[in-house]
Amino acid sequence: MDDPLITLTTDFGTASPYVAAMKGVILSVNPRARLLDLTHDIPPQNIDHTAFFLASALPYFPAGCIHVVVVDPGVGTDRALLYVELGNLRLLVPDNGCWTELERTSRLQPAVIRLTEPAFWRASVSATFHGRDVLAPVAGHLSLGVNPNRLGAPVDQWIRRESRPSRLETGRLVGEVVFVDHFGNLLTNLSAEALHTLPGPVRFTVGDRTVDQQVRTYAEAQAGTAVALISSSGHLEIAVSHGNAAQHLQAHVGTPVIVTTWNRD
Amino acid sequence: MDDPLITLTTDFGTASPYVAAMKGVILSVNPRARLLDLTHDIPPQNIDHTAFFLASALPYFPAGCIHVVVVDPGVGTDRALLYVELGNLRLLVPDNGCWTELERTSRLQPAVIRLTEPAFWRASVSATFHGRDVLAPVAGHLSLGVNPNRLGAPVDQWIRRESRPSRLETGRLVGEVVFVDHFGNLLTNLSAEALHTLPGPVRFTVGDRTVDQQVRTYAEAQAGTAVALISSSGHLEIAVSHGNAAQHLQAHVGTPVIVTTWNRD
Amino acid sequence: MDDPLITLTTDFGTASPYVAAMKGVILSVNPRARLLDLTHDIPPQNIDHTAFFLASALPYFPAGCIHVVVVDPGVGTDRALLYVELGNLRLLVPDNGCWTELERTSRLQPAVIRLTEPAFWRASVSATFHGRDVLAPVAGHLSLGVNPNRLGAPVDQWIRRESRPSRLETGRLVGEVVFVDHFGNLLTNLSAEALHTLPGPVRFTVGDRTVDQQVRTYAEAQAGTAVALISSSGHLEIAVSHGNAAQHLQAHVGTPVIVTTWNRD
Repeated sequence: MDDPLITLTTDFGTASPYVAAMKGVILSVNPRARLLDLTHDIPPQNIDHTAFFLASALPYFPAGCIHVVVVDPGVGTDRALLYVELGNLRLLVPDNGCWTELERTSRLQPAVIRLTEPAFWRASVSATFHGRDVLAPVAGHLSLGVNPNRLGAPVDQWIRRESRPSRLETGRLVGEVVFVDHFGNLLTNLSAEALHTLPGPVRFTVGDRTVDQQVRTYAEAQAGTAVALISSSGHLEIAVSHGNAAQHLQAHVGTPVIVTTWNRD
Repeated sequence: MDDPLITLTTDFGTASPYVAAMKGVILSVNPRARLLDLTHDIPPQNIDHTAFFLASALPYFPAGCIHVVVVDPGVGTDRALLYVELGNLRLLVPDNGCWTELERTSRLQPAVIRLTEPAFWRASVSATFHGRDVLAPVAGHLSLGVNPNRLGAPVDQWIRRESRPSRLETGRLVGEVVFVDHFGNLLTNLSAEALHTLPGPVRFTVGDRTVDQQVRTYAEAQAGTAVALISSSGHLEIAVSHGNAAQHLQAHVGTPVIVTTWNRD
Repeated sequence: MDDPLITLTTDFGTASPYVAAMKGVILSVNPRARLLDLTHDIPPQNIDHTAFFLASALPYFPAGCIHVVVVDPGVGTDRALLYVELGNLRLLVPDNGCWTELERTSRLQPAVIRLTEPAFWRASVSATFHGRDVLAPVAGHLSLGVNPNRLGAPVDQWIRRESRPSRLETGRLVGEVVFVDHFGNLLTNLSAEALHTLPGPVRFTVGDRTVDQQVRTYAEAQAGTAVALISSSGHLEIAVSHGNAAQHLQAHVGTPVIVTTWNRD
């Protein structure tokens, strides 16, 4: 039986030695640990980006993996470090709301433990790198089968980030861009279900720009055309065929996206 | 006996959650899968870059690995997804010519199956992310030993990208830059064998710039000097010692490279 | 018993096919090899960056790992390739001083072998890619248990890069920035121990800018404030809370950092 897989999600980049140090610490605790990079390219200290990333990626993983997340602007303060069980998922995270979106979309009740037992940490804990000194060794111990209850006491309160839900106004649906992907595609908080509540044909406004064409997939439109489609996670996505919608429409996270029925114009 | 290794080559970057989702899906099918990142930094939707990358890297891999490639501007259209056996290599690729260069340089006859059997896909297949919904689960099943013949029917036609061969004109050899590497080195389509057909000493023209010095390795020349050498893949390469040839010579993929014998000037 | 883990540290980036080719070669020698990326984002040919990276990361790794480092501007010249044992660590490196800082901080006596035995190399060795043709196959053979003494003869001389130590002048400590991390934090060569030799409260000068506030961790200061703190490696670090100190203070590797006692002003 293989040891459980440990995934790593950080904002450290890899030109700096921090990710490598964490890998070394995990392997020092469990030399057989199976490590898997998810990303080290979260924009520095960006909790919203992290929240979207985790909610979009972790549900695809099988039971048993240990997901270590180090995006931690509050390192060294009294913010807690948490071990979370959410359905099949096991997380080690700073208590900063980075897993709020994952909790919300899972609709499951998490079991949460605050890490307080230094027996599972590095002997000396720095004030600025708890990823290396606390989360990495705890992940190593968990992968060896340590019972999570030994890591600290259960807690029933943790930081939750506010959700930014879309809203239905008279005859129109108002949301916003919540993520810009590597291709410049704009992912929104407007679900396919919400779109279906609007009657008749619709048009889309992104900031002050209008998008008229709705397609099923990118290549359906002429190169350079801005289009609306349903993303692979079931939300409204604005793209430019063979192009970069964020640049083309000068949009970014937070840009308003409004869906209006045609016949109201 | 270990499960076969699955490599991943995409244009997804890692700041977006797409690569992580694919890893999760593969592991959900085969929790013991051994995953190996080749790159996620293919320039978006750049098939030529992918073709060069695969032809340069995959021949070094041992038999049995499963190479998953997701650079797929035509996702969701009727372009096929393919399982390819090419000598020792096993590929899962969109049918867009990304493996043409690999086929050409291998001089082997591939066996190709079009993926049509949804039993090996995710239950719900999106229109925009076949990497996650088709290729990843198929890779997982292959790594568990599923017979490739169960994935779909053999095909004998697939997309091939046109080759851009060098040509010999009267007393000169005409080619072009086919790849610019991370150091700014210019890799060309002029083979060492072709160079040897030219009599006597030669000079090199890159766009409108002349390169006179030929060396065996980068550090032979003074820092900042543009030089010609034979690359590690046996082709003419233009480099700047301790510098960036692409910037220095304002060259890019497609820039003409001409080799002329001295005595003709 | 698992095969030893092989880590990779290069300046190749991953958009180019060089890292993938090295992985293929290692796996061709040992298909069961466990590969771990440390970084491929060392700035091109930057030995100082490599030296800091290795000294900061490798000490966290357990015994037995094989650390392959390919930052090699002198490839193809008569510079040696080395197998190094330094305490628990096993390295395969070009002889260019990239491991000097690791040697210095370990205070251990290394055992060094110059790689001269082509039986463990690829059959054909290019002039420009010894990472693929020499270091990768040697790593594969080592991971299979080959005795390092078969790789070549011991040597007792190798390149060492000059150290840039801090110095104590009358009432002040003079050092410099030795690394800028992904967050723009400035890591210096001034140790916590050296700081403690200065009497009373101190102030910090970074280039021509003054930093007055000393904190224990980033989030203690107001966002945007430049602060001094002790880094996770026990050295003076200059940071900007929720910001980028390198940009904010226009500092870079080599920028002087001076610590002065207040009462001298």
